[in-house]
Amino acid sequence: MLESWLESYDPGTLFDERGALVPELAALAPRGERRMGANPHANGGRLLVDLDLPRFRDYAVQVPAPATVHRESTRQLGEMLRDVFVRNRERTNFRLFCPDETNSNRLSSVFEAERRCLVQRRLDIDDHVAPDGRVMEVLSEHLCEGWLEGYLLTGRHGLFATYESFAMVSASMTVQHSKWLQESRELEWRAPVASLNILLTSTCWRNDHNGFSHQGPGLIDVMLSKRGTVARIYLPPDANSLLSVADHCLRSRNYVNLIVIDKQPQLQWLTIEEATEHAARGASRWSWASTDGGGVPDVVLACAGDTPTLETVAAAWLLRQLAPELRVRVVNVIDLMTLFTPDVHAHGMSEAQFEELFTRERPVVFAFHGYRYAVHQLVHGRPDPARFHVRGFMEQGTTTTPFDMVVMNEMSRFHLAALALRHSSLAAERTAPLIAELEERIRDAVRYSREHLQDQPEVRDWSWTTSVGLGGRSQ
Amino acid sequence: MLESWLESYDPGTLFDERGALVPELAALAPRGERRMGANPHANGGRLLVDLDLPRFRDYAVQVPAPATVHRESTRQLGEMLRDVFVRNRERTNFRLFCPDETNSNRLSSVFEAERRCLVQRRLDIDDHVAPDGRVMEVLSEHLCEGWLEGYLLTGRHGLFATYESFAMVSASMTVQHSKWLQESRELEWRAPVASLNILLTSTCWRNDHNGFSHQGPGLIDVMLSKRGTVARIYLPPDANSLLSVADHCLRSRNYVNLIVIDKQPQLQWLTIEEATEHAARGASRWSWASTDGGGVPDVVLACAGDTPTLETVAAAWLLRQLAPELRVRVVNVIDLMTLFTPDVHAHGMSEAQFEELFTRERPVVFAFHGYRYAVHQLVHGRPDPARFHVRGFMEQGTTTTPFDMVVMNEMSRFHLAALALRHSSLAAERTAPLIAELEERIRDAVRYSREHLQDQPEVRDWSWTTSVGLGGRSQ
Repeated sequence: MLESWLESYDPGTLFDERGALVPELAALAPRGERRMGANPHANGGRLLVDLDLPRFRDYAVQVPAPATVHRESTRQLGEMLRDVFVRNRERTNFRLFCPDETNSNRLSSVFEAERRCLVQRRLDIDDHVAPDGRVMEVLSEHLCEGWLEGYLLTGRHGLFATYESFAMVSASMTVQHSKWLQESRELEWRAPVASLNILLTSTCWRNDHNGFSHQGPGLIDVMLSKRGTVARIYLPPDANSLLSVADHCLRSRNYVNLIVIDKQPQLQWLTIEEATEHAARGASRWSWASTDGGGVPDVVLACAGDTPTLETVAAAWLLRQLAPELRVRVVNVIDLMTLFTPDVHAHGMSEAQFEELFTRERPVVFAFHGYRYAVHQLVHGRPDPARFHVRGFMEQGTTTTPFDMVVMNEMSRFHLAALALRHSSLAAERTAPLIAELEERIRDAVRYSREHLQDQPEVRDWSWTTSVGLGGRSQ
Repeated sequence: MLESWLESYDPGTLFDERGALVPELAALAPRGERRMGANPHANGGRLLVDLDLPRFRDYAVQVPAPATVHRESTRQLGEMLRDVFVRNRERTNFRLFCPDETNSNRLSSVFEAERRCLVQRRLDIDDHVAPDGRVMEVLSEHLCEGWLEGYLLTGRHGLFATYESFAMVSASMTVQHSKWLQESRELEWRAPVASLNILLTSTCWRNDHNGFSHQGPGLIDVMLSKRGTVARIYLPPDANSLLSVADHCLRSRNYVNLIVIDKQPQLQWLTIEEATEHAARGASRWSWASTDGGGVPDVVLACAGDTPTLETVAAAWLLRQLAPELRVRVVNVIDLMTLFTPDVHAHGMSEAQFEELFTRERPVVFAFHGYRYAVHQLVHGRPDPARFHVRGFMEQGTTTTPFDMVVMNEMSRFHLAALALRHSSLAAERTAPLIAELEERIRDAVRYSREHLQDQPEVRDWSWTTSVGLGGRSQ
């Protein structure tokens, strides 16, 4: 039975007398790059063509003086991305992925040049929709992340922009892509692919209207534990530094780049030249906000992230007036991984650089965008890490005012200034009344927001001044 | 037009002359608990009935001496869960949720008493399947987590058991449930619900056969940043401590309990009495493995998690023979949150308890189940946190042998012993040759596993002995 069944395939027409496949059939097997394992679409780096990127400086915000101009920083990025679409129209190798929040995340300028992709029947009221649209909007983080991964692995470029807390939905996919990149680096024949760029916007500190479910910076912790060869986390504090970081990320290869910045109007700190230099360093001293005269400070006020930067600079401003004798240094960290020691992460600052910014032994009050304890992982191995007093998100949130969010999480300018005084070497009889005053300011701010359902004008409208006094206390 | 349209509803039959709804219609509105907001199914704690739990001690492994018996620890839990099903059959208020891994995770004893739920047509070959089965198996972590959340919120009890790395798939749901619990505690009218119990098994250290994608302890980091009022993380090192922890978690309310333990055969350390006391303390000194004679140690070897405990106790065993003059204390941590200071977490040890275990200034070599840097978050605020030298998962993995996994991540017994010597106060001329010997043992182990595709017998079959020598070095 077996023999007659096998004979039914007529092997005499398939094999020659030595049992080899006849040449006509053998010739059907694909050759060269048509073989599955050698197909360049399975080794997308071989197909990768650099993006034609516009000059990021052309989208800069004018900043005549620090902390005086308010802008929605991600709008500037939206303008730059619009021109990325324009310049690469022929190459058709760039897409933006977003869970139906492109407008909400202030990236809407892209619709001046590109449309949302929809292959189904369209209605008259559909807005900027086309079957060949390259803005991929779908209310599924899993789809956005997965589409982008596939797009990158087949040799193209892209950006996934999402509300910060929703990025946790697809966190395990981000983790697995990191693992894939880490392993692929070990394989010499694998050509580098474009980086997985994730823009986390609509962040925890400014989701006061959406409430607690929308307040969660957890993806930072998830990526912190990934290898320094593939993971990058950037916290640009304003529009110009965002442009510089985005340009860098869109040119990079084989990384997962996390970029965290909010979309709401925010104070702008740096000119485009300053921002570019700051982003290249990863962390620097902001001399205009410091009172250490370039010498050794009594206390370092450090910050990473836009809202922490605002509260830190405002705290430095308060301290100038409350305790002008205190030498304060303000340090801003834009590339979070620079805090790791160099053996942990390729971006880790040398010990000399670290000490130049943070000294060896002075207290550091650190305001951090994410969960506050993460910073203690970063500074382990640095001189006296116990002197780092971190404030950051501590899983306190609700529907409230923006300033109430930083108060609830003990990261307000008043908290930071009080913390700096408490850990400074000033005498207790000097600092105690100042700390009491700051605590009264906190109570005032809470009372005001409960009564008026918005923040005090002097908090909401604060901007940098070099000569004005502390300002009246509200009733 | 408006008037005639509204008149068409015949308002004269709906309202009386004063405009009030007529009594017959008003009576149609539900009353009391039938009102949507007062329905007890929306406030499940009001329906909650305690589980009838068996005595967990009845499932204990006999441990005549520490580190001499191997057992699959989760099997003991499976037997206990079987009897939870039996004792609560009438109450029908317990379910087990698992992404089709109940057997793989060694919980198969539950099938002696319960079946998998399937309401579709069944085939003859289906195994322990019934429409009213209470083991919910489906290859979707999202469904398992979501079903369990709904089940708890409507007043029932359950356990979600999954491969450790797959728990990241539903991490954002776990986060949102934590937030819900945290907020619900503030509402006096909300009755407490049963805790969300998550068993992470098939862990990173023993997924050497599945490889890198299955090696990821990330959910620990995700839960570490959640509030101390709701988040709990337990790392029982063996079967008896697992039983005690599980009993505690199944009785608890309003928490997210993460329990992490592997399923593979592993050395058993504690009798059920010792395990119960250890679990109640959260962390303790293991005197049988220590050589500090109850006095001040030269170095503390601390560990949290089953594989770290194995490597740490084996390192202590090696140090007894290599450097008998070194006073070593072994500390095991089962309740990870005890390491936090008490202001951060309700389980945080007092400063006195912390110093009793870890001293104020002696070096601590800490072997940790999860990503190594997480421990630095935990011990911030403790005396001299820089003296904690942590080894743990550092995102190094592949398909290899179990021991090669701890070598790749620098957490092997040889690494830990060398680290203890390096940070001890012993003279360099004493420690240098010992460290060289340990480094040679690492190279030997790697060579052996490359050649034999398994670990050296003296590593694989190691067990605690008090009198035997170091054992021959392999070729």
